[in-house]
Amino acid sequence: MIPAMTSDASPDASPDASLDDLAATDPGQALARFAAGLRPEHIPAAVMRRAEDLFLDWFASVLAGKGARAVEILARVVAAQGPADGPAEILIHRRGSSPWVAATINAAASHVAEQDDVHNGSVFHPAAVVFPVALALAQARGASGRALLAAAVAGYEVGIRVGEFLGRSHYTVFHTTGTAGTVAAAATAGHLLGLDAAQMQHAFGSAGTQAAGLWEFLRDAADSKQLHTAHAAGAGLLAAELAQAGFTGARRIFDGAQGLAAGMSRDALPARLADGLGRRWALAETSFKFHASCRHTHPAADALQALLREHALAADAVAAVTTRVHQGAIDVLGPVTDPQTVHQAKFSMGTVLGLVATQGQAGLLEFDTRFRAPEVVAFRDKVTMALDPEVDAAYPARWIGKVEVRTTDGRTLQARVDEPKGDPGNTLSRPELEDKALRLAAYRDGASPAEVRAVIARCWALEADPRVGRLLPEA
Amino acid sequence: MIPAMTSDASPDASPDASLDDLAATDPGQALARFAAGLRPEHIPAAVMRRAEDLFLDWFASVLAGKGARAVEILARVVAAQGPADGPAEILIHRRGSSPWVAATINAAASHVAEQDDVHNGSVFHPAAVVFPVALALAQARGASGRALLAAAVAGYEVGIRVGEFLGRSHYTVFHTTGTAGTVAAAATAGHLLGLDAAQMQHAFGSAGTQAAGLWEFLRDAADSKQLHTAHAAGAGLLAAELAQAGFTGARRIFDGAQGLAAGMSRDALPARLADGLGRRWALAETSFKFHASCRHTHPAADALQALLREHALAADAVAAVTTRVHQGAIDVLGPVTDPQTVHQAKFSMGTVLGLVATQGQAGLLEFDTRFRAPEVVAFRDKVTMALDPEVDAAYPARWIGKVEVRTTDGRTLQARVDEPKGDPGNTLSRPELEDKALRLAAYRDGASPAEVRAVIARCWALEADPRVGRLLPEA
Repeated sequence: MIPAMTSDASPDASPDASLDDLAATDPGQALARFAAGLRPEHIPAAVMRRAEDLFLDWFASVLAGKGARAVEILARVVAAQGPADGPAEILIHRRGSSPWVAATINAAASHVAEQDDVHNGSVFHPAAVVFPVALALAQARGASGRALLAAAVAGYEVGIRVGEFLGRSHYTVFHTTGTAGTVAAAATAGHLLGLDAAQMQHAFGSAGTQAAGLWEFLRDAADSKQLHTAHAAGAGLLAAELAQAGFTGARRIFDGAQGLAAGMSRDALPARLADGLGRRWALAETSFKFHASCRHTHPAADALQALLREHALAADAVAAVTTRVHQGAIDVLGPVTDPQTVHQAKFSMGTVLGLVATQGQAGLLEFDTRFRAPEVVAFRDKVTMALDPEVDAAYPARWIGKVEVRTTDGRTLQARVDEPKGDPGNTLSRPELEDKALRLAAYRDGASPAEVRAVIARCWALEADPRVGRLLPEA
Repeated sequence: MIPAMTSDASPDASPDASLDDLAATDPGQALARFAAGLRPEHIPAAVMRRAEDLFLDWFASVLAGKGARAVEILARVVAAQGPADGPAEILIHRRGSSPWVAATINAAASHVAEQDDVHNGSVFHPAAVVFPVALALAQARGASGRALLAAAVAGYEVGIRVGEFLGRSHYTVFHTTGTAGTVAAAATAGHLLGLDAAQMQHAFGSAGTQAAGLWEFLRDAADSKQLHTAHAAGAGLLAAELAQAGFTGARRIFDGAQGLAAGMSRDALPARLADGLGRRWALAETSFKFHASCRHTHPAADALQALLREHALAADAVAAVTTRVHQGAIDVLGPVTDPQTVHQAKFSMGTVLGLVATQGQAGLLEFDTRFRAPEVVAFRDKVTMALDPEVDAAYPARWIGKVEVRTTDGRTLQARVDEPKGDPGNTLSRPELEDKALRLAAYRDGASPAEVRAVIARCWALEADPRVGRLLPEA
């Protein structure tokens, strides 16, 4: 927890005192009013700094998606539907197009390296759907860095609350980043377009009624994850543009009798929709990814890494590993028993632990080159997952990692990690973020070190940037 | 029922005899294989003729959407994201753009006049999502009329079966035309792009994971219905384009453990997915709309019209009307008690019956000019809906209309209609369709009578058309 960002740290933290009353009767309307009314001066400086951190981290994640088959296909198909040039930057191709085209493609690229951020409580990856929209519209409208950051904060605050609202049953079938992400993208776009509260609510309605994304693709290692972020960003952006032009949406899209929760959740939590608006900054609760894998593997990976270091154990001294996990990890990772692709391997608990144990880390390069190496496969097959009541009860607010290792010489060792690396209480420093950005940009030759350093410098001064232009030199 | 179209009327009706075996184990794969393998020569001539009928009826429905606020807003917003010109025709504006832009806008325009077709068993409006995609891609690829028609048949056969598969619980919250429609659009596009069976299955996966559309908007008379068809057409078209380029989707998007039915239905019927492939032609089961209102009102409207004629009753001789309906009618129409807009009035059972009783019909003009006329409102308030076990049990295979009228002089009269006007057994003739097309085109000045007659002539010879070009002269 970061007290400075979750209390009333701002001089004008609650822009609209009536929001709390409204939240009790119509939380969706309260959320829309908050998103529309949020001004940069309401946002604590520490939250603005964290938004800059997240923007850099997102930018680098996009570059790491360059060249990925699914991303390049989607980029080609979507770009062909748009204009040959335009104000919004397709980062992996260094050319411009319309905001919908650029946001869609950048969103697809955001999520493939599995290095983009995650909010634990909502199990939602905000950056992948928020920043593509914020950047595209800021570029198209000549907006300032301050406007971009405030719009991103609106997107995070809305999307995270919608994800929490949809509950755990939703996540068992739906990819929250696709569903809540559509509304997050609409909030971001709506803020940059200057929607009023009523228009914002219409934008939420048009976004929510397009919310989609099913986990079924995981079983086949199909490309849908990239499509989900692309779709969310594109549909959310259009929803806000539509609202600005007078197109209306359902007023109670979240909690109405035929709304999102009615159709796609069995345990929705209406109180979460408008939880602590203007006081709690959910953006600051967002975690950076350290391992290049599905976040559900990280607590166990950190715990195993700590255990191996503490006991100076080598991989071949391990006979069996039991990871004690929450049900969500079993739902998402359980189907992946023999990963056939790098991307699928990122959803294999055994592979992730095998990389940590045999390669020392589970980074992008380790996945690419070693996910099916014999020693990794051998370790993978020693790993099982077991539901742990304490871990499950704490989830998703806290992602506890517990592992139990049986050694070849008969010992049983245990380790736990209460906050995985990258979580708010164990976050990445700006030098660590810069290092990660340089590595992600170099991974697929997305940008040169000098280009990344120039973007880093712009990020750390983003709030003072009078006009967000292109981030990279044109192709 | 139309025996000629639902039996083995074609010389080569079953293109792939192994489909029945596959249907039992993996109906989604069977459906994809059918859609990919469907050749024009497999399709009975009567089905091709009916597809031409449906194409004309759709074209006119689009023109009737011209000038509608929601449609024009959506057209402006979407067109701004695409190129300023292109091969695919935006019918209401007579200019070209990319296929995604044109299909999206034409789909939005299809559905606003509530005059487009409906398939009873799936409660799905196929034309609104199938033909926008078929026309846009046929124009972009210089395809023949025969190719367009075969692609449309593929789209109808797939979409209707997916709608039936999703079951009645789905329709209580989701607008099937938005959800099943996304897959129907992908099947149509995939057929025109010449996808093989594996690619078609990937297209279904990418479409299904974008399937969306909630009924919540009805409560507010919001504009989402137009967004749903637009979204379905656009997302389905992109899904097929992606599959052609190698993008993969979930193999069991329909019946997988985290697929469409798992997330969005409680009573899915897997056997319906591949029901009678190559033998049953679901396209020929589709109904044309006669009244300009939600289809759920039509059986009762026909029954009331028959009753008033039979007994020579005037509207003011009616003291009360009870319509005996299926649960779906109550779900969709129940929330609309005091319609504030023309569009909402089309979902008001009382208003529809009031127009029939006081104006003689419930056509586009009657809605526009009289939906809040005092005599219509007075009649509306005499109308109630009651669940009828027989009607409910027959639905959705048959849409029975039953009304009970209490007269001001104390009589109780009853009437029933077993097949509403426009249903396959009570269909519109080609002269009736031509008359309807001319009326729809004139309604918002979408095209001149001479222009419509030229399109009619092309429709009746569509299968022989070597290359589908623009349908209307450029603006």
